[in-house]
Amino acid sequence: MSKNYNFILASASPRRKELLSIYTKNFKVLPADIDESIPNNMDIDYIPLYIAKMKADAVKNKINNSDILITADTVVILDNKIYGKPKNRDDAYNMLHTLSNKEHKVITGVCCYSGDNNINIEFIDTTFVTFIKLNESIINDYLDTDEYTDKAGAYAVQGYGSLFIEKINGSYDNVVGLPVGKLMAKLLNNNINIFKI
Amino acid sequence: MSKNYNFILASASPRRKELLSIYTKNFKVLPADIDESIPNNMDIDYIPLYIAKMKADAVKNKINNSDILITADTVVILDNKIYGKPKNRDDAYNMLHTLSNKEHKVITGVCCYSGDNNINIEFIDTTFVTFIKLNESIINDYLDTDEYTDKAGAYAVQGYGSLFIEKINGSYDNVVGLPVGKLMAKLLNNNINIFKI
Repeated sequence: MSKNYNFILASASPRRKELLSIYTKNFKVLPADIDESIPNNMDIDYIPLYIAKMKADAVKNKINNSDILITADTVVILDNKIYGKPKNRDDAYNMLHTLSNKEHKVITGVCCYSGDNNINIEFIDTTFVTFIKLNESIINDYLDTDEYTDKAGAYAVQGYGSLFIEKINGSYDNVVGLPVGKLMAKLLNNNINIFKI
Repeated sequence: MSKNYNFILASASPRRKELLSIYTKNFKVLPADIDESIPNNMDIDYIPLYIAKMKADAVKNKINNSDILITADTVVILDNKIYGKPKNRDDAYNMLHTLSNKEHKVITGVCCYSGDNNINIEFIDTTFVTFIKLNESIINDYLDTDEYTDKAGAYAVQGYGSLFIEKINGSYDNVVGLPVGKLMAKLLNNNINIFKI
């Protein structure tokens, strides 16, 4: 980095931590507690970015000039409907049953700001994911693993959920929860040498 | 599993070990030492499967009736030419320079046999990977990380190499080195309950 920035990841997600760890082990985690209420009539594809911005707003006053703040929100979208984290096992069952044998979108909204205002990155990343046809038995076996909890769309692409995936079209780390390759490429364009952080 | 099978992964690749670990920690590793010479005029897409079969042949006599043997070989293909592991840094530079701003194929050949002959699975999996446009500076920064060594095509999709990837079309774990989701789905079709292994 031309300047000695520190990363702050405003997310409690262990998957996002792991993805950022590819580039640096040296970052702070600062979960952002927000009320995820959305204005009516918002374009559904931009809701994750709206939420990522809310997360950034919630912690912006806690960062220093030499910090780079990263926030993100990931959703699964099918037929113009958002599938977030399942409330319980039944909810998870219904989500997986609905996603079966279809292509859905995974969208992550990402915000990345530096305390000194030199870095101001906002983008969404979309990946198309096609599920194989699932039956009741395989869904129940999957739910028995408890992997579905805390996952948008009730599956983890990096776990047993990979069983369900016929193919993806787009970036993979976006489906895990943070398009970290694209974010780092954008930081590189902003003269942050991410090979040296 | 209906029967108490043990997995044997005939590969020294730490990435393949990690992928199989999603499903079971309880497997043996038995690297297969082979001479990778290929018959002339073979369809290039089937070379990885040919090599995977050679690896299986090299260790088949070492497995028991209750073992399931897995072998795999992964290559990068562009313009009908195979890009394997780079010989040295210059070779890696040339590979990445050639892959820049283009779509290439990653093909893994997979063999999976049980010692009792009940399981007999052979397949290839193809993923299309599109690279962003790379310049000399970013390639050299990447090579400085030493991530390229021992990787087909001189990059790791799961590391800094994710920076170079515009998008993938197909399965992700195939690009890492073993389409483990597809393999497990095929084992499930063979009545191996991979949720219980």
